Amino acid sequence: MTTMLTPELSEQALESFRTALGPDAVITDEDGLREFRDPFAFSTWEDYTAAAVVMPHTVEEIQEIVRIANEHTVRLWTHGAGMNNGYGGPAPRLNGSVILSLRKMNRVLEIDEECAYAVVEPGVRWFDLYDAIQAGGHKLMASIPDLGWGSVIGNTLENGVTYLPTGADMAASCGLEVVLPNGELMRTGMGAMPGNKAWHVYKRSLGPSHDHLFMQSNLGIVTKLGYWLMPYPECYMPLWLRVWKEDDLAPLVETLRQLMLDRTIENVPQIWNTISFASVMSSRALWYEGDDPVPDEVIDKMARELEVGRWMMRFALYGDEAVVDHRFAKIKEAFGQIEGAEVWGAKCAPQDMASLENPHERVQAGVPNLDINQMTGWYGGEEGGHIGFSPVARLTGPDALALRDLIRGLVENEARLDYAAVLIPTNARSFIHITLVIFDTRNEAEARRAYDTSKLLVREAAKAGYGEYRAHLDFMDLAAEQYSFNDHAQMRFTETIKDALDPNGILSPGKQGIWPRVFRENGAGS
Amino acid sequence: MTTMLTPELSEQALESFRTALGPDAVITDEDGLREFRDPFAFSTWEDYTAAAVVMPHTVEEIQEIVRIANEHTVRLWTHGAGMNNGYGGPAPRLNGSVILSLRKMNRVLEIDEECAYAVVEPGVRWFDLYDAIQAGGHKLMASIPDLGWGSVIGNTLENGVTYLPTGADMAASCGLEVVLPNGELMRTGMGAMPGNKAWHVYKRSLGPSHDHLFMQSNLGIVTKLGYWLMPYPECYMPLWLRVWKEDDLAPLVETLRQLMLDRTIENVPQIWNTISFASVMSSRALWYEGDDPVPDEVIDKMARELEVGRWMMRFALYGDEAVVDHRFAKIKEAFGQIEGAEVWGAKCAPQDMASLENPHERVQAGVPNLDINQMTGWYGGEEGGHIGFSPVARLTGPDALALRDLIRGLVENEARLDYAAVLIPTNARSFIHITLVIFDTRNEAEARRAYDTSKLLVREAAKAGYGEYRAHLDFMDLAAEQYSFNDHAQMRFTETIKDALDPNGILSPGKQGIWPRVFRENGAGS
Repeated sequence: MTTMLTPELSEQALESFRTALGPDAVITDEDGLREFRDPFAFSTWEDYTAAAVVMPHTVEEIQEIVRIANEHTVRLWTHGAGMNNGYGGPAPRLNGSVILSLRKMNRVLEIDEECAYAVVEPGVRWFDLYDAIQAGGHKLMASIPDLGWGSVIGNTLENGVTYLPTGADMAASCGLEVVLPNGELMRTGMGAMPGNKAWHVYKRSLGPSHDHLFMQSNLGIVTKLGYWLMPYPECYMPLWLRVWKEDDLAPLVETLRQLMLDRTIENVPQIWNTISFASVMSSRALWYEGDDPVPDEVIDKMARELEVGRWMMRFALYGDEAVVDHRFAKIKEAFGQIEGAEVWGAKCAPQDMASLENPHERVQAGVPNLDINQMTGWYGGEEGGHIGFSPVARLTGPDALALRDLIRGLVENEARLDYAAVLIPTNARSFIHITLVIFDTRNEAEARRAYDTSKLLVREAAKAGYGEYRAHLDFMDLAAEQYSFNDHAQMRFTETIKDALDPNGILSPGKQGIWPRVFRENGAGS
Repeated sequence: MTTMLTPELSEQALESFRTALGPDAVITDEDGLREFRDPFAFSTWEDYTAAAVVMPHTVEEIQEIVRIANEHTVRLWTHGAGMNNGYGGPAPRLNGSVILSLRKMNRVLEIDEECAYAVVEPGVRWFDLYDAIQAGGHKLMASIPDLGWGSVIGNTLENGVTYLPTGADMAASCGLEVVLPNGELMRTGMGAMPGNKAWHVYKRSLGPSHDHLFMQSNLGIVTKLGYWLMPYPECYMPLWLRVWKEDDLAPLVETLRQLMLDRTIENVPQIWNTISFASVMSSRALWYEGDDPVPDEVIDKMARELEVGRWMMRFALYGDEAVVDHRFAKIKEAFGQIEGAEVWGAKCAPQDMASLENPHERVQAGVPNLDINQMTGWYGGEEGGHIGFSPVARLTGPDALALRDLIRGLVENEARLDYAAVLIPTNARSFIHITLVIFDTRNEAEARRAYDTSKLLVREAAKAGYGEYRAHLDFMDLAAEQYSFNDHAQMRFTETIKDALDPNGILSPGKQGIWPRVFRENGAGS
């Protein structure tokens, strides 16, 4: 199959790319390509490797690349500028694909102070957006993820989580420009009207709205995106909550849902378990030498000595100081019902946000950094890696406990690894259970076990009614298969659209389990 | 063209519908059909008339109707249960279509107290949802529109505006069940996984999310929808703001945007001009007998005597009493910068919301009513009608004034009618300018002028960069044509999807300007 569907990348196609983009923008040497592999894959595995990387500078160059790809049946795998760690990195689903890297398209095109939004190209990283906001002297904050090296567009299109109130429900984006699989340029929503100034302020169109079709999909290449910003509040107050018993997760989540439903808490919190916090603050060998998962009594010791509890929540308040004070008191009172729970934090004036010492507190203020990145050193030091397994659940105590028990059981008993979890309520009614399956990438058996367990988790979680919000390259097909209502009606609907828009199947085949017709007829994805 | 594309509805097709649904569920008599015409059309006009109405009770019956429609090439025009006043009512775009009325599917399937949402069928009206919430003793509020007779699903699918914080940015819906044009049943988002309990709490899916494809479109028939509800706040405070000069609209809007961006005001306000308020509270003849538009000095008299000012804004606060008090003081201070501006309101405990005297104040508390419906009696008493012309703009003072000047100029000078406007900021960055082109439906010349002027407005507004959020049947094509970026790339994209999903073109041909291939090839919509 592979040979037929990804024919050797022809010298003719490469020559066309070089002519269109200049020779420096086409990478085919092994060293250059290595950077575009999954950094957490075991080093000798040969899956998910690209044949070349092309790096356009302009929308017109992307259109030309798409034209060449249609002519020569080249499979293009779009990648913005970020890391996608835990989900397969920049690597393509299909061996022999050509990676369309958009990192050279890195201009912040506009920052609108009045209506509080930015317009960015796909190579703009969170660091770049922050710098542009600062350089313009705008008193505006972007809702950002934990690591600042990612691409604003890349993260948004993967439904990635960010943490300011504007990031709640992943609702910060508004209005796209897209190169379609036939090479045509489309602007969505109000942008479909020439000269319409509401492109990035009103999320819909006359007729159906298409922005969400381009998220986690392979239906187009997004070249511009509007991203809503938030004006500086009078007062910012990053907060922490710590509880001491494993099952305190249930009342924590029940209380949190009520505080989010009544909009006392407006941002996107994170609830970390002991192991996940410990993995950022220390390394495993300091605590435990055994090959089996860290036992509960050692976890309790970490909880006490690192002062992170069995669960620790980071969240924040933003607003007029009087409102922040009222809410802080209310939050303390509400969580105070849980025995031993503590809530603390300190108010911060906007001009001091960038100098906060704790990186979590900077993240929630829209100040990007990379400080939380050492997490994957838990097992393997520099060579540590992780796989993200990330199902969605209702934001209720029983769901939180049921999902924890299911995942912890499989991670500890099947993978014989430690259970590292970060629960992220992206809105008041649901949360994503980010499971960090952390392993030593130098240990092939351990790596293999981590991947196998992740796949088992996908299947077992689906049986219990929990589906992934985003899937790792290595089990995109499996994760997508679980969405099987009425003989996979939703996937067949998506495939019908894919085939109509991209008859040659050139854009990101296999992305989130979506395969163009020619691949399905030849048994891909099963 | 019409003959070929909408062949006489065959006796065979009708017989199949009768067999499938029972004879009572198929309406073909003139009296029965009259109810499904646009109530505001001039009585002898023959556009937009249906050949029959079918009324299924179940999803399976809808699937059978779709099967019959595909077999006999019947054009189905879906209608929920509401009025769609100002946009063409329940009438189909294409003469001879069969209206698929969903009003018999009127069950509230679920009210989830814990995660605060309801699941409804398409015939459920706002009144029905409210009653079900009350009957269940739930302390939950639905974000509702001004008139309670509409369908929750119908309004949502038209991107209709509602007014509670959960209705901001039209973001209250989550998770659909849809009968596709081929008769298959699809569930979107997390609902695509059997047994997944996050269907109505998480808005996305693995892979692209399709909910927005079914809004203002003809790609499927929505049979279930999740709708987010809001828990009772400790305190509800409906508020009013009044300003006295026509150009006070600019500082009003500038101040409002800042109060919405910092989330001091969290619901969806309405800003009425004098004429629109007067049309609800009185009739034109009381003020002015002239055939020309009411002059400014008479408008000032109305503003004073009705105590509504030149612009009056309704909005509300919801939350803990301490927060409401703080915000009310802040709002008074902010609008107090506008000379002569007044802000007032009274706090209300949740148990007293249903007995508030002012219907606007009940609407913003989720208590449905029909009291505002007499607006269209301004010219014609019982026989008054209106056309909605509703462009979107940035929520800025200059945009508000520019759009007002453009629309007022054309309405007064071309239609020789009065300028009735309600501006609705559906989020902190944009507003919809609802223009109520009010006329006497008994006066054919006046009706004709109202329609002609609306079309002129569509064209002139587009030249200035303002596009409609929703279009009247009579100028859907024209409004859609204005979205012409790159030779109508967005519409051609939608058409590609339409043709792939609905090759026979049976679902709502012409809806928001979207015509199936066979019609386009025969020149429809141009």
